[in-house]
Amino acid sequence: MSYNGLAEARRRLRLDAGSTAGVVRGPPDSCWLPTTCYKTERLTKNFIDDMNYYEASLAAYKKNHGVYTTASKMPLESKDDLSTAYTPGIAEPCRQIAADPSLVYELTMKGNSVVVVSDGSAILGLGNIGPLAGLPVMEGKSVLYKKYANVDAIPLVLASQEVDEIIEAIRMIAPTFGGIHLEDIAAPACFEVERRLSAMLDIPVMHDDQHATAIVTLAGLINALKVVGKNIGEVKIVINGAGAAGLAIVKLLLAAGAKHQVVLDSKGIIAVGREGMNSDKDEFAKIINVEGRTGTLAEAMAGADVFIGVSKPGLVSVEMVKSMNEKSIVFALANPEPEILPSLAAEGGAAVIATGRSDFPNQINNVLVFPGLFRGLLDSRVKTLTDEMRLAAAQAIAELVQNPTADKIVPAITEVNPAPFVAAAIAKLKV
Amino acid sequence: MSYNGLAEARRRLRLDAGSTAGVVRGPPDSCWLPTTCYKTERLTKNFIDDMNYYEASLAAYKKNHGVYTTASKMPLESKDDLSTAYTPGIAEPCRQIAADPSLVYELTMKGNSVVVVSDGSAILGLGNIGPLAGLPVMEGKSVLYKKYANVDAIPLVLASQEVDEIIEAIRMIAPTFGGIHLEDIAAPACFEVERRLSAMLDIPVMHDDQHATAIVTLAGLINALKVVGKNIGEVKIVINGAGAAGLAIVKLLLAAGAKHQVVLDSKGIIAVGREGMNSDKDEFAKIINVEGRTGTLAEAMAGADVFIGVSKPGLVSVEMVKSMNEKSIVFALANPEPEILPSLAAEGGAAVIATGRSDFPNQINNVLVFPGLFRGLLDSRVKTLTDEMRLAAAQAIAELVQNPTADKIVPAITEVNPAPFVAAAIAKLKV
Repeated sequence: MSYNGLAEARRRLRLDAGSTAGVVRGPPDSCWLPTTCYKTERLTKNFIDDMNYYEASLAAYKKNHGVYTTASKMPLESKDDLSTAYTPGIAEPCRQIAADPSLVYELTMKGNSVVVVSDGSAILGLGNIGPLAGLPVMEGKSVLYKKYANVDAIPLVLASQEVDEIIEAIRMIAPTFGGIHLEDIAAPACFEVERRLSAMLDIPVMHDDQHATAIVTLAGLINALKVVGKNIGEVKIVINGAGAAGLAIVKLLLAAGAKHQVVLDSKGIIAVGREGMNSDKDEFAKIINVEGRTGTLAEAMAGADVFIGVSKPGLVSVEMVKSMNEKSIVFALANPEPEILPSLAAEGGAAVIATGRSDFPNQINNVLVFPGLFRGLLDSRVKTLTDEMRLAAAQAIAELVQNPTADKIVPAITEVNPAPFVAAAIAKLKV
Repeated sequence: MSYNGLAEARRRLRLDAGSTAGVVRGPPDSCWLPTTCYKTERLTKNFIDDMNYYEASLAAYKKNHGVYTTASKMPLESKDDLSTAYTPGIAEPCRQIAADPSLVYELTMKGNSVVVVSDGSAILGLGNIGPLAGLPVMEGKSVLYKKYANVDAIPLVLASQEVDEIIEAIRMIAPTFGGIHLEDIAAPACFEVERRLSAMLDIPVMHDDQHATAIVTLAGLINALKVVGKNIGEVKIVINGAGAAGLAIVKLLLAAGAKHQVVLDSKGIIAVGREGMNSDKDEFAKIINVEGRTGTLAEAMAGADVFIGVSKPGLVSVEMVKSMNEKSIVFALANPEPEILPSLAAEGGAAVIATGRSDFPNQINNVLVFPGLFRGLLDSRVKTLTDEMRLAAAQAIAELVQNPTADKIVPAITEVNPAPFVAAAIAKLKV
């Protein structure tokens, strides 16, 4: 592909330097990804594929005015239909609930619904593009809930990115729903929003970018470790990215028995007292970095068994992968462009490689988790999501791949829908 | 029907004195409705019909877990489907909206959606039964939006009945929607909520109990006046009820040219300085009751041409109707039980009689208004609902009955859907 073609692709992808604030920017023209510029063809090919999806998606969203719509579960044709679905008949379910509020779960949408709510502060990999620009994602997520778990999800975007205002708005609308799905809220606000709402509400609250990502990552890791014959309690794990996903992964891996984790943000290994820490990072640094180790990503990766990236494109080089232990596992989950391309990770000697993309093997994809997780939480009337439930969900997804191989550590959503299995795993815990 | 049968019907309807707080209560056993106890058979028959609807509705809401559900407007089967409806393709509509926020109306649900939101403080005729018990009504109203106007409405109930908290919650969720439909919020809070939100938001805000009721009442009145050959500027109008509906009717009738209106609340004719007034009642009393007239409902009705009740069952006697002018018009809109039964109003000499019920002629029904009204507001991107639009909507509905008669002053929703006509009337104004 010619230079001009690449520039055109980038222009259409709005990756040029002059693009709108908040939109993804690429590296300078002279080098597509700093550590991988000699392999631009492969990367460019993927970008062109994506570009077709971008065009298709824009056309579909324009034609349909979004993807989300509503429907009635009862006929509304005759006078009798209307008198049953609406007045005067509807007074009776209202009265029943007034007399016994717990009936709201049986007699209304509440028992089968979640709100998919964002402040627009961290939409996909696009950053803080605001609530209006985030609305397509809330719609998309909502219809995936319906498709995979028959959950009625309501897309919602909020007018403020202030923690107190987000919490208050969600508290106010909570009576309508059986659960709260927080979506694409930036760290560290997301931690406080989830923590305070969980304590406040009698319905489960889940930040997808944290927990669904952590669960599907653990599911993949369980099978990847099987493939290389290593044990989660013994492997050295490097997690690059200390935002919502990174810290949730650390927490879940701890619960799963991981004993050696090193976590990095853009300034290096997180350690109490280091520059650029916050209370959430401190909390984890105290547990996993007792010695107060510091250092760069390259230093952290030397001798590691597992790399999990939830950070930015191109941060990992072939040399870094080469410096890892034998039979290394590389999860390069930055989206849409991974920390290192699978072909380069393989060149570095990685035995199992996963990304967040659908066009490589082993897609670590949230959609494997959230529909079934909330199906289970709703069906079992769970009030608070626990580590035990997260572990059970990860195990249920991992078990869907009976004989894991390097190219098959997680199921593809187009092959098997994990939702009933995840929901069943949650239900089992409740009994 | 025996006394025991009646008592059983009342028990099942929860109209007995021991029923739950907030639920409709009937008069003492010895007299079903104070002014009409000699005609209980007819009333009882209606109640029994309703009871069947109550049972049918309860069964349907239980079986379906509410009436509201969600759906996708795009296929979600193949990998290509998913990459278009969701990631990676969805990044493109997000980016487009980030670059030009006005595109959110084209590319998302926003341009076709309203939220149907209540605090549960005035649900149907059931009173302040709270948000959970009000949720069925929000669901029902939402599916009527879809059925009659293809508007995607989202049902929502709020955790607080404080004006400031209601306003703040709706402000926060407003970016998602093209309009706000306030439902079943008690007066006087509803006035302040609507006023402040209308001033604050760049999308239309409409309190259904005020404006849809006022519009369909005016539509009916336009045709009723044709039937009796009277002119709106000349007739004496008595409005019983100074809550959300009553005051909105006064306002719209003023805009329609009414010059002689008397409004009563439970304490009699509203007048500045009278006991039990508030700022909203004062506002109207200053305009329509300049002389500061006071008195009872019976006094107000003597010599009136039009009675419009948005109050309570059984407040109007045959004698009161007899005291009205010749060719009187009686709109007894209390739901489910009117201020006076049609048969009794006829006995009193009323020429045109309307109620809120579907089992009598001339049902003054909000569903004739709200779907088409918001269809029009959304299609024309109206930011604020005006009197001009309300008058145009009423006129459009009135015109659907080409030759009004005493038994046909408004269309029935099962015969004709007024939504396209109402929407067209709004669109015409915008041009």
